[in-house]
Amino acid sequence: MSNAEMKKEVKNKIDVGAKIAPYPMPVILVGANVKGKANFLVAAWFMETAISPPKVMVALNKLHYTNQGIKENKTFSVCIPSEDMMKSTDYCGIVSGFKVEKSGVFNVFYGKLKTAPMVTECPVNLECRLDKVIDNGSHELFDGDILSTYTEEKYLTDGAVDIKKVKPFLLSLNERLYYKLGEPTAKAWGVGKKYKP
Amino acid sequence: MSNAEMKKEVKNKIDVGAKIAPYPMPVILVGANVKGKANFLVAAWFMETAISPPKVMVALNKLHYTNQGIKENKTFSVCIPSEDMMKSTDYCGIVSGFKVEKSGVFNVFYGKLKTAPMVTECPVNLECRLDKVIDNGSHELFDGDILSTYTEEKYLTDGAVDIKKVKPFLLSLNERLYYKLGEPTAKAWGVGKKYKP
Repeated sequence: MSNAEMKKEVKNKIDVGAKIAPYPMPVILVGANVKGKANFLVAAWFMETAISPPKVMVALNKLHYTNQGIKENKTFSVCIPSEDMMKSTDYCGIVSGFKVEKSGVFNVFYGKLKTAPMVTECPVNLECRLDKVIDNGSHELFDGDILSTYTEEKYLTDGAVDIKKVKPFLLSLNERLYYKLGEPTAKAWGVGKKYKP
Repeated sequence: MSNAEMKKEVKNKIDVGAKIAPYPMPVILVGANVKGKANFLVAAWFMETAISPPKVMVALNKLHYTNQGIKENKTFSVCIPSEDMMKSTDYCGIVSGFKVEKSGVFNVFYGKLKTAPMVTECPVNLECRLDKVIDNGSHELFDGDILSTYTEEKYLTDGAVDIKKVKPFLLSLNERLYYKLGEPTAKAWGVGKKYKP
Protein backbone atom coordinates (compact mmCIF):
# COMPACT_ATOMS: atom_id res chain seq x y z
CA MET A 1 0.00 0.00 0.00
CA SER A 2 1.42 3.42 -0.95
CA ASN A 3 1.49 6.31 1.52
CA ALA A 4 -1.26 8.05 -0.41
CA GLU A 5 -3.43 4.93 -0.38
CA MET A 6 -2.86 4.46 3.32
CA LYS A 7 -3.82 8.03 4.18
CA LYS A 8 -7.00 7.56 2.18
CA GLU A 9 -7.81 4.37 4.05
CA VAL A 10 -7.33 6.00 7.47
CA LYS A 11 -9.47 8.89 6.29
CA ASN A 12 -12.21 6.36 5.49
CA LYS A 13 -12.40 5.26 9.13
CA ILE A 14 -15.60 6.21 10.90
CA ASP A 15 -15.99 6.23 14.68
CA VAL A 16 -19.38 4.63 15.37
CA GLY A 17 -18.92 5.15 19.09
CA ALA A 18 -18.69 3.32 22.40
CA LYS A 19 -20.77 0.26 21.66
CA ILE A 20 -21.02 -3.44 22.34
CA ALA A 21 -18.32 -4.86 20.13
CA PRO A 22 -19.47 -6.32 16.79
CA TYR A 23 -18.16 -9.86 16.56
CA PRO A 24 -19.71 -13.32 16.79
CA MET A 25 -19.28 -15.50 19.86
CA PRO A 26 -20.06 -19.16 20.40
CA VAL A 27 -23.36 -19.66 22.18
CA ILE A 28 -23.26 -21.49 25.51
CA LEU A 29 -25.68 -22.61 28.16
CA VAL A 30 -24.53 -21.75 31.67
CA GLY A 31 -25.91 -24.21 34.18
CA ALA A 32 -26.45 -23.68 37.89
CA ASN A 33 -28.72 -25.08 40.54
CA VAL A 34 -30.98 -22.34 41.85
CA LYS A 35 -32.93 -23.23 44.99
CA GLY A 36 -32.09 -26.87 44.35
CA LYS A 37 -33.31 -26.94 40.74
CA ALA A 38 -31.31 -26.99 37.53
CA ASN A 39 -31.45 -23.74 35.57
CA PHE A 40 -29.83 -22.87 32.27
CA LEU A 41 -29.05 -19.45 30.86
CA VAL A 42 -27.99 -18.65 27.31
CA ALA A 43 -24.79 -16.64 27.14
CA ALA A 44 -22.10 -15.71 24.70
CA TRP A 45 -19.79 -13.59 26.84
CA PHE A 46 -17.24 -16.05 28.08
CA MET A 47 -13.60 -16.90 27.59
CA GLU A 48 -10.80 -18.93 28.96
CA THR A 49 -8.67 -17.04 31.46
CA ALA A 50 -5.83 -19.37 32.46
CA ILE A 51 -4.06 -22.50 31.26
CA SER A 52 -3.02 -24.48 34.30
CA PRO A 53 -5.36 -25.08 35.98
CA PRO A 54 -7.57 -24.20 33.02
CA LYS A 55 -10.14 -21.57 33.87
CA VAL A 56 -13.21 -20.22 32.15
CA MET A 57 -14.98 -16.95 32.92
CA VAL A 58 -18.57 -16.05 32.10
CA ALA A 59 -19.91 -12.48 32.22
CA LEU A 60 -23.54 -12.50 33.30
CA ASN A 61 -25.87 -9.54 33.62
CA LYS A 62 -26.75 -9.04 37.28
CA LEU A 63 -30.42 -9.28 36.37
CA HIS A 64 -30.14 -13.01 35.62
CA TYR A 65 -31.69 -15.67 37.82
CA THR A 66 -28.71 -18.01 37.38
CA ASN A 67 -26.24 -15.74 39.20
CA GLN A 68 -27.63 -16.45 42.66
CA GLY A 69 -27.31 -20.20 42.07
CA ILE A 70 -23.64 -19.92 41.16
CA LYS A 71 -22.95 -17.91 44.30
CA GLU A 72 -25.00 -20.29 46.42
CA ASN A 73 -23.27 -23.50 45.31
CA LYS A 74 -19.91 -22.15 44.14
CA THR A 75 -20.27 -24.33 41.06
CA PHE A 76 -21.49 -23.90 37.50
CA SER A 77 -21.28 -25.52 34.10
CA VAL A 78 -20.59 -24.28 30.59
CA CYS A 79 -22.44 -26.41 28.04
CA ILE A 80 -21.88 -26.04 24.31
CA PRO A 81 -25.00 -26.72 22.23
CA SER A 82 -24.77 -27.85 18.62
CA GLU A 83 -26.56 -26.14 15.77
CA ASP A 84 -29.42 -28.65 15.86
CA MET A 85 -30.24 -27.31 19.37
CA MET A 86 -30.73 -23.73 18.18
CA LYS A 87 -34.46 -23.59 18.96
CA SER A 88 -34.33 -25.01 22.47
CA THR A 89 -31.26 -22.93 23.29
CA ASP A 90 -32.87 -19.74 22.05
CA TYR A 91 -35.97 -20.59 24.08
CA CYS A 92 -33.80 -20.49 27.23
CA GLY A 93 -32.74 -16.98 26.21
CA ILE A 94 -36.33 -15.81 25.76
CA VAL A 95 -37.80 -17.02 29.04
CA SER A 96 -36.34 -16.11 32.43
CA GLY A 97 -35.81 -18.57 35.27
CA PHE A 98 -37.54 -16.02 37.49
CA LYS A 99 -40.79 -16.75 35.65
CA VAL A 100 -40.44 -20.15 34.02
CA GLU A 101 -39.16 -23.37 35.47
CA LYS A 102 -36.51 -24.45 32.93
CA SER A 103 -35.30 -27.68 34.51
CA GLY A 104 -37.39 -29.72 32.05
CA VAL A 105 -36.18 -28.16 28.81
CA PHE A 106 -33.15 -30.42 28.63
CA ASN A 107 -32.08 -33.73 30.08
CA VAL A 108 -29.77 -32.95 32.96
CA PHE A 109 -26.84 -34.80 34.45
CA TYR A 110 -24.43 -34.02 37.26
CA GLY A 111 -20.74 -34.77 37.60
CA LYS A 112 -18.36 -35.01 40.52
CA LEU A 113 -19.34 -31.63 42.00
CA LYS A 114 -22.98 -32.79 42.31
CA THR A 115 -24.39 -29.22 42.09
CA ALA A 116 -23.42 -28.08 38.58
CA PRO A 117 -26.20 -29.23 36.24
CA MET A 118 -25.17 -30.09 32.70
CA VAL A 119 -27.18 -30.55 29.52
CA THR A 120 -27.02 -34.15 28.34
CA GLU A 121 -27.84 -33.18 24.75
CA CYS A 122 -24.86 -30.77 24.52
CA PRO A 123 -21.80 -32.32 22.88
CA VAL A 124 -19.44 -30.63 25.35
CA ASN A 125 -19.93 -29.84 29.05
CA LEU A 126 -17.41 -28.10 31.28
CA GLU A 127 -17.88 -28.69 34.99
CA CYS A 128 -16.51 -25.76 36.95
CA ARG A 129 -15.76 -24.83 40.54
CA LEU A 130 -16.17 -21.12 41.19
CA ASP A 131 -12.86 -19.43 41.93
CA LYS A 132 -13.96 -15.80 42.18
CA VAL A 133 -16.68 -13.30 41.34
CA ILE A 134 -15.78 -9.86 40.01
CA ASP A 135 -18.34 -7.06 40.22
CA ASN A 136 -18.19 -5.25 36.88
CA GLY A 137 -21.05 -2.77 36.89
CA SER A 138 -23.88 -4.19 34.80
CA HIS A 139 -22.33 -7.65 34.91
CA GLU A 140 -20.82 -10.13 37.33
CA LEU A 141 -17.81 -12.08 36.10
CA PHE A 142 -17.71 -15.66 37.35
CA ASP A 143 -14.27 -17.23 36.98
CA GLY A 144 -14.08 -20.96 37.55
CA ASP A 145 -11.65 -23.83 37.41
CA ILE A 146 -12.57 -26.39 34.75
CA LEU A 147 -12.50 -29.70 36.64
CA SER A 148 -13.92 -31.97 33.95
CA THR A 149 -14.83 -31.88 30.28
CA TYR A 150 -17.65 -34.25 29.41
CA THR A 151 -18.22 -35.33 25.85
CA GLU A 152 -19.04 -38.49 23.90
CA GLU A 153 -16.95 -40.82 21.78
CA LYS A 154 -18.80 -39.69 18.65
CA TYR A 155 -17.47 -36.12 19.03
CA LEU A 156 -13.83 -37.21 19.20
CA THR A 157 -11.22 -37.55 16.47
CA ASP A 158 -7.96 -39.16 17.56
CA GLY A 159 -9.00 -38.77 21.19
CA ALA A 160 -9.64 -35.03 21.06
CA VAL A 161 -12.88 -33.09 20.74
CA ASP A 162 -13.50 -32.33 17.06
CA ILE A 163 -15.22 -28.97 16.54
CA LYS A 164 -16.46 -30.14 13.13
CA LYS A 165 -18.46 -32.86 14.90
CA VAL A 166 -19.61 -30.60 17.77
CA LYS A 167 -21.02 -27.99 15.34
CA PRO A 168 -21.31 -25.06 17.77
CA PHE A 169 -23.20 -22.00 16.55
CA LEU A 170 -22.46 -18.36 17.15
CA LEU A 171 -24.33 -15.24 18.20
CA SER A 172 -23.81 -11.84 16.63
CA LEU A 173 -25.34 -9.84 19.47
CA ASN A 174 -25.85 -6.49 17.74
CA GLU A 175 -27.46 -8.14 14.73
CA ARG A 176 -29.46 -10.53 16.94
CA LEU A 177 -28.48 -13.32 14.55
CA TYR A 178 -27.17 -16.83 14.95
CA TYR A 179 -24.43 -17.96 12.57
CA LYS A 180 -23.23 -21.42 11.72
CA LEU A 181 -19.54 -22.14 12.00
CA GLY A 182 -17.87 -22.40 8.60
CA GLU A 183 -15.19 -24.74 7.35
CA PRO A 184 -11.65 -25.04 8.72
CA THR A 185 -9.38 -23.25 6.28
CA ALA A 186 -5.81 -23.07 7.54
CA LYS A 187 -3.39 -24.16 10.23
CA ALA A 188 -2.85 -21.72 13.09
CA TRP A 189 0.86 -21.10 13.80
CA GLY A 190 1.32 -22.43 10.30
CA VAL A 191 -0.19 -20.40 7.49
CA GLY A 192 1.72 -17.30 8.67
CA LYS A 193 5.06 -19.00 8.04
CA LYS A 194 4.56 -18.18 4.37
CA TYR A 195 4.05 -14.50 5.14
CA LYS A 196 6.81 -12.02 4.37
CA PRO A 197 6.21 -8.59 5.91
CA MET B 1 -36.29 -39.05 24.79
CA SER B 2 -37.35 -41.99 26.95
CA ASN B 3 -35.85 -42.56 30.39
CA ALA B 4 -33.96 -45.57 29.06
CA GLU B 5 -32.56 -43.56 26.14
CA MET B 6 -31.54 -40.76 28.48
CA LYS B 7 -29.71 -43.08 30.85
CA LYS B 8 -27.85 -44.53 27.90
CA GLU B 9 -26.87 -41.07 26.71
CA VAL B 10 -25.53 -40.06 30.13
CA LYS B 11 -23.66 -43.36 30.26
CA ASN B 12 -22.04 -42.42 26.95
CA LYS B 13 -20.46 -39.32 28.49
CA ILE B 14 -16.70 -39.47 28.82
CA ASP B 15 -14.71 -37.16 31.08
CA VAL B 16 -11.68 -36.10 29.01
CA GLY B 17 -10.37 -34.06 31.93
CA ALA B 18 -9.41 -30.55 32.99
CA LYS B 19 -8.42 -29.06 29.66
CA ILE B 20 -8.54 -25.89 27.65
CA ALA B 21 -12.16 -25.75 26.51
CA PRO B 22 -12.84 -26.94 22.97
CA TYR B 23 -14.69 -24.19 21.15
CA PRO B 24 -13.80 -21.68 18.43
CA MET B 25 -13.21 -18.01 19.21
CA PRO B 26 -12.90 -15.03 16.88
CA VAL B 27 -9.30 -14.09 16.27
CA ILE B 28 -8.23 -10.58 17.27
CA LEU B 29 -5.12 -8.48 17.20
CA VAL B 30 -4.44 -6.72 20.48
CA GLY B 31 -2.54 -3.50 19.92
CA ALA B 32 -0.34 -1.64 22.40
CA ASN B 33 2.59 0.69 22.20
CA VAL B 34 5.63 -0.94 23.78
CA LYS B 35 8.57 1.38 24.37
CA GLY B 36 6.93 3.87 22.02
CA LYS B 37 6.42 1.46 19.14
CA ALA B 38 3.23 -0.21 17.94
CA ASN B 39 3.04 -3.91 18.67
CA PHE B 40 0.31 -6.41 17.83
CA LEU B 41 -0.41 -9.74 19.44
CA VAL B 42 -2.77 -12.41 18.13
CA ALA B 43 -5.33 -13.49 20.70
CA ALA B 44 -8.63 -15.29 20.92
CA TRP B 45 -9.36 -15.16 24.64
CA PHE B 46 -11.49 -12.07 25.00
CA MET B 47 -15.07 -11.11 25.76
CA GLU B 48 -17.27 -8.22 26.58
CA THR B 49 -17.73 -7.72 30.30
CA ALA B 50 -20.20 -4.85 30.73
CA ILE B 51 -22.81 -2.95 28.75
CA SER B 52 -22.73 0.65 29.88
CA PRO B 53 -20.03 1.77 29.56
CA PRO B 54 -19.22 -1.14 27.25
CA LYS B 55 -16.14 -3.03 28.32
CA VAL B 56 -13.96 -5.65 26.74
CA MET B 57 -11.51 -7.94 28.50
CA VAL B 58 -8.54 -9.76 26.99
CA ALA B 59 -6.71 -12.60 28.72
CA LEU B 60 -3.02 -12.53 27.81
CA ASN B 61 -0.34 -14.95 28.86
CA LYS B 62 2.13 -13.17 31.14
CA LEU B 63 4.93 -14.18 28.78
CA HIS B 64 3.73 -11.79 26.07
CA TYR B 65 5.61 -8.65 25.11
CA THR B 66 2.39 -6.65 24.66
CA ASN B 67 1.39 -6.79 28.34
CA GLN B 68 4.02 -4.30 29.48
CA GLY B 69 2.84 -1.80 26.88
CA ILE B 70 -0.75 -1.96 28.08
CA LYS B 71 0.36 -1.37 31.66
CA GLU B 72 2.73 1.42 30.61
CA ASN B 73 0.16 3.44 28.63
CA LYS B 74 -3.09 2.24 30.22
CA THR B 75 -4.52 1.88 26.72
CA PHE B 76 -4.93 -0.90 24.19
CA SER B 77 -6.89 -1.78 21.10
CA VAL B 78 -8.82 -4.82 19.93
CA CYS B 79 -8.68 -5.13 16.14
CA ILE B 80 -10.76 -7.67 14.23
CA PRO B 81 -9.03 -9.00 11.11
CA SER B 82 -11.01 -10.38 8.20
CA GLU B 83 -10.40 -13.80 6.66
CA ASP B 84 -8.25 -12.31 3.88
CA MET B 85 -5.76 -11.25 6.61
CA MET B 86 -5.24 -14.79 7.90
CA LYS B 87 -1.59 -15.05 6.83
CA SER B 88 -0.40 -11.72 8.24
CA THR B 89 -2.40 -12.25 11.43
CA ASP B 90 -0.97 -15.72 11.95
CA TYR B 91 2.51 -14.32 11.33
CA CYS B 92 2.01 -12.05 14.36
CA GLY B 93 1.23 -15.15 16.40
CA ILE B 94 4.38 -16.93 15.27
CA VAL B 95 6.94 -14.19 15.95
CA SER B 96 7.30 -12.49 19.33
CA GLY B 97 7.67 -8.75 19.82
CA PHE B 98 10.61 -9.57 22.10
CA LYS B 99 12.54 -10.72 19.03
CA VAL B 100 10.94 -9.13 15.99
CA GLU B 101 9.89 -5.56 15.44
CA LYS B 102 6.26 -5.90 14.30
CA SER B 103 5.33 -2.25 13.80
CA GLY B 104 5.75 -2.62 10.02
CA VAL B 105 3.50 -5.65 9.48
CA PHE B 106 0.35 -3.54 9.27
CA ASN B 107 -0.51 0.05 8.57
CA VAL B 108 -1.16 1.68 11.92
CA PHE B 109 -3.41 4.53 12.99
CA TYR B 110 -4.16 6.11 16.35
CA GLY B 111 -7.40 7.53 17.70
CA LYS B 112 -8.24 9.95 20.48
CA LEU B 113 -6.16 8.16 23.12
CA LYS B 114 -2.99 8.61 20.99
CA THR B 115 -1.26 5.54 22.48
CA ALA B 116 -3.47 2.62 21.39
CA PRO B 117 -2.23 1.54 17.94
CA MET B 118 -4.84 0.13 15.59
CA VAL B 119 -4.54 -1.87 12.38
CA THR B 120 -5.83 0.13 9.43
CA GLU B 121 -6.51 -3.01 7.38
CA CYS B 122 -8.82 -4.47 10.07
CA PRO B 123 -12.53 -3.81 9.39
CA VAL B 124 -13.22 -3.14 13.08
CA ASN B 125 -11.04 -1.47 15.71
CA LEU B 126 -11.98 -0.97 19.36
CA GLU B 127 -10.02 1.76 21.14
CA CYS B 128 -9.87 1.01 24.85
CA ARG B 129 -8.80 2.71 28.05
CA LEU B 130 -7.52 0.24 30.64
CA ASP B 131 -9.83 0.00 33.63
CA LYS B 132 -8.14 -2.80 35.60
CA VAL B 133 -5.68 -5.67 35.46
CA ILE B 134 -6.48 -8.96 37.17
CA ASP B 135 -3.67 -11.37 37.95
CA ASN B 136 -4.95 -14.84 37.04
CA GLY B 137 -1.98 -17.18 37.36
CA SER B 138 -0.66 -17.93 33.87
CA HIS B 139 -2.56 -14.96 32.44
CA GLU B 140 -3.25 -11.30 33.07
CA LEU B 141 -6.78 -10.10 32.39
CA PHE B 142 -6.93 -6.59 30.96
CA ASP B 143 -10.39 -5.05 31.25
CA GLY B 144 -10.93 -1.82 29.33
CA ASP B 145 -13.65 0.67 28.50
CA ILE B 146 -14.43 0.76 24.78
CA LEU B 147 -14.23 4.46 23.92
CA SER B 148 -14.54 4.24 20.15
CA THR B 149 -15.34 1.70 17.46
CA TYR B 150 -13.63 2.47 14.16
CA THR B 151 -14.88 0.95 10.95
CA GLU B 152 -15.54 1.96 7.35
CA GLU B 153 -18.70 2.74 5.44
CA LYS B 154 -18.25 -0.40 3.35
CA TYR B 155 -18.67 -2.63 6.42
CA LEU B 156 -21.98 -1.09 7.45
CA THR B 157 -25.54 -2.12 6.64
CA ASP B 158 -28.22 0.35 7.75
CA GLY B 159 -25.64 2.18 9.86
CA ALA B 160 -24.52 -0.85 11.85
CA VAL B 161 -21.46 -3.07 11.45
CA ASP B 162 -22.40 -6.08 9.32
CA ILE B 163 -20.54 -9.23 10.34
CA LYS B 164 -21.14 -10.73 6.90
CA LYS B 165 -19.06 -7.88 5.44
CA VAL B 166 -16.41 -7.98 8.19
CA LYS B 167 -15.78 -11.72 7.66
CA PRO B 168 -13.97 -12.45 10.92
CA PHE B 169 -12.32 -15.85 11.26
CA LEU B 170 -12.08 -18.10 14.27
CA LEU B 171 -9.44 -20.12 16.10
CA SER B 172 -10.01 -23.59 17.47
CA LEU B 173 -7.07 -23.58 19.87
CA ASN B 174 -6.82 -27.30 20.65
CA GLU B 175 -7.00 -28.22 16.98
CA ARG B 176 -4.68 -25.35 16.01
CA LEU B 177 -7.06 -24.58 13.15
CA TYR B 178 -8.64 -21.45 11.76
CA TYR B 179 -12.28 -21.64 10.73
CA LYS B 180 -14.32 -19.36 8.54
CA LEU B 181 -17.57 -18.02 9.88
CA GLY B 182 -20.59 -19.67 8.28
CA GLU B 183 -23.90 -18.25 7.17
CA PRO B 184 -26.46 -16.56 9.41
CA THR B 185 -29.24 -19.07 9.98
CA ALA B 186 -31.80 -17.80 12.48
CA LYS B 187 -32.91 -14.85 14.57
CA ALA B 188 -31.74 -14.80 18.17
CA TRP B 189 -34.58 -14.18 20.63
CA GLY B 190 -36.75 -15.32 17.75
CA VAL B 191 -36.30 -18.89 16.58
CA GLY B 192 -36.94 -20.14 20.15
CA LYS B 193 -40.46 -18.71 20.14
CA LYS B 194 -41.47 -21.74 18.08
CA TYR B 195 -40.07 -24.11 20.68
CA LYS B 196 -42.41 -26.02 22.97
CA PRO B 197 -40.64 -27.73 25.85
